[in-house]
Amino acid sequence: MASWALGIDLGGTNIKIAVVGELEGILFEDTQPTDTSAGPEGVVRQLAFMADACYQRAVETLDADLFAGVGLGAPGAVDAARGTLSCAPNLPGWQQRYALRDQLRLRLEEAHGIKTSVILENDANAAAYGEAIFGGGNAFRDFMLVTLGTGVGGGIILDRKLYRGPSGTAGEIGFMIIDFEGENVHAGVRGTIEGLIGKERIVEMACSQKPDLSPRLMELCHRDTDRLSPRHLEQAAKEGDAVALRTWERIGSILGVGLANVTALMDIRKFVIGGGIAAAGELIFKPAMMQLHRSTLPSMHEGLEIVPARLGNKAGIYGAAALCFASGKPVASDA
Amino acid sequence: MASWALGIDLGGTNIKIAVVGELEGILFEDTQPTDTSAGPEGVVRQLAFMADACYQRAVETLDADLFAGVGLGAPGAVDAARGTLSCAPNLPGWQQRYALRDQLRLRLEEAHGIKTSVILENDANAAAYGEAIFGGGNAFRDFMLVTLGTGVGGGIILDRKLYRGPSGTAGEIGFMIIDFEGENVHAGVRGTIEGLIGKERIVEMACSQKPDLSPRLMELCHRDTDRLSPRHLEQAAKEGDAVALRTWERIGSILGVGLANVTALMDIRKFVIGGGIAAAGELIFKPAMMQLHRSTLPSMHEGLEIVPARLGNKAGIYGAAALCFASGKPVASDA
Repeated sequence: MASWALGIDLGGTNIKIAVVGELEGILFEDTQPTDTSAGPEGVVRQLAFMADACYQRAVETLDADLFAGVGLGAPGAVDAARGTLSCAPNLPGWQQRYALRDQLRLRLEEAHGIKTSVILENDANAAAYGEAIFGGGNAFRDFMLVTLGTGVGGGIILDRKLYRGPSGTAGEIGFMIIDFEGENVHAGVRGTIEGLIGKERIVEMACSQKPDLSPRLMELCHRDTDRLSPRHLEQAAKEGDAVALRTWERIGSILGVGLANVTALMDIRKFVIGGGIAAAGELIFKPAMMQLHRSTLPSMHEGLEIVPARLGNKAGIYGAAALCFASGKPVASDA
Repeated sequence: MASWALGIDLGGTNIKIAVVGELEGILFEDTQPTDTSAGPEGVVRQLAFMADACYQRAVETLDADLFAGVGLGAPGAVDAARGTLSCAPNLPGWQQRYALRDQLRLRLEEAHGIKTSVILENDANAAAYGEAIFGGGNAFRDFMLVTLGTGVGGGIILDRKLYRGPSGTAGEIGFMIIDFEGENVHAGVRGTIEGLIGKERIVEMACSQKPDLSPRLMELCHRDTDRLSPRHLEQAAKEGDAVALRTWERIGSILGVGLANVTALMDIRKFVIGGGIAAAGELIFKPAMMQLHRSTLPSMHEGLEIVPARLGNKAGIYGAAALCFASGKPVASDA
């Protein structure tokens, strides 16, 4: 029989957890708002409590001997080798390095009687690994997952394994600079991809084309910038709105420049695009692919591919669990 | 006793060859103008002839049983797994894929009676490997060699092994785009690092600041752009010339943006800088380091280092030979 594991996605808003079968995928799942009021210790208590509940429910039908462990994806700076988390921007009180992996393991054993290994991974890496094993990257030996959402993030899979880089921070395509003398400064850095096509910027981009805005989009822009969402722009583009179409074309084109840089540097030619913004699909993918071709040498064109991610916001829990399955343990350059 | 190998650097102008001892480094070497008049077959004959001469001289003092093979670095698109070379821009008649590795091996055996393995590698990769084993990258487990010359090239070492990428074209930092809407178009791509700081561009950059040029540089610019060389600019900067200083600062700063992108994407934090332009040393390295810090998140600052390459134009022959030493055989993701 195939093994199963617990996959957890620790976010600033919610904690998502699932029981994942190596072959079956998600068997059942649970979500709770993250309680950050008691700091890291409080989060560990909540994680252990949720994991225990899932575990107990799982062993009613699954073989406890086939339990492969707990995988945990977390935002911020994860040191996967040491199992620590620091600088988690959306988790208050989490600036210091905290031994999240070992604390969760201890808590599960001491308070809940569950002896298990815990694997801690950066959330973007976990998502990339999830897409590699269960999702849109399954057909690719080497690819990069790029997530387009509030921010722009990424994870790299080489030879079907997670590439973390020497200190574990690889994949930050959002901080790649493609307009080093441009006006946009984001998180202190000029001309980054996240600065240019992060969610907020997309709305600004549309609203900045005021003279050409359709009455409908104009109304949304004028009322309150927050009201105009990428979803509206997607809808408007599908109805043929010129500004919306131009906006998506520009977003795709900027993404394409970033992908071209990944191809030039790492020779990666397959890209899996996820995140809320990626719901715009071909509106982004088509101009991205055109730009990717324009921005690379002909000798690099063979095999270029851009495909949608398939696991949505479950990529993280899939990936975290998948990291526990023995054959799937990542081998990073620091391993 | 330690083994020895033949390292060859096949260039459009010269063929460089050396006998390299695993511990001793280069024992002796030879250089001849590349004879491209008879196409690939002619080049193979010349390579075999030169290799034979070196081999015969070597076995007068070295143990033939400790001969580790022939390593060959070549420009253009190298398929290291298949041992073929195509699209070599400086080798006339070399557009088609040619089985350079096997042809050289055959020629050495049939015409010269030398039975040996031959390893074919892209010249930038060979140089990076040379610096990794014998040069400026020796202290680093993971680093990128960036060569600043007529063009801008690079090679990536991960975990002390060559990173070739899935199809063998990794490391093309010269084609990384950092100014996607800029005016500069080079080899059909807008805003690439090579387009911005390739050798020709450096001279143009200085000459474009005409109103501020010192009489000496002005004279060189006016006479003929070709007369003003990076070497003049280096000298002028060391004498305090404002335009020259500003030019190097800009070159370093642009390089720094490129390195920041490598750090963001691959988490590589050590950079070895080679090539003729890198002779300017701190004039480039200092602004590059400042820019590298400015252009990366604080969480990526730890361990950032920029050091000069140490093997000059011998990195290629060192690296080609080093690839032959058993322990040094590269493991690429396509291996």
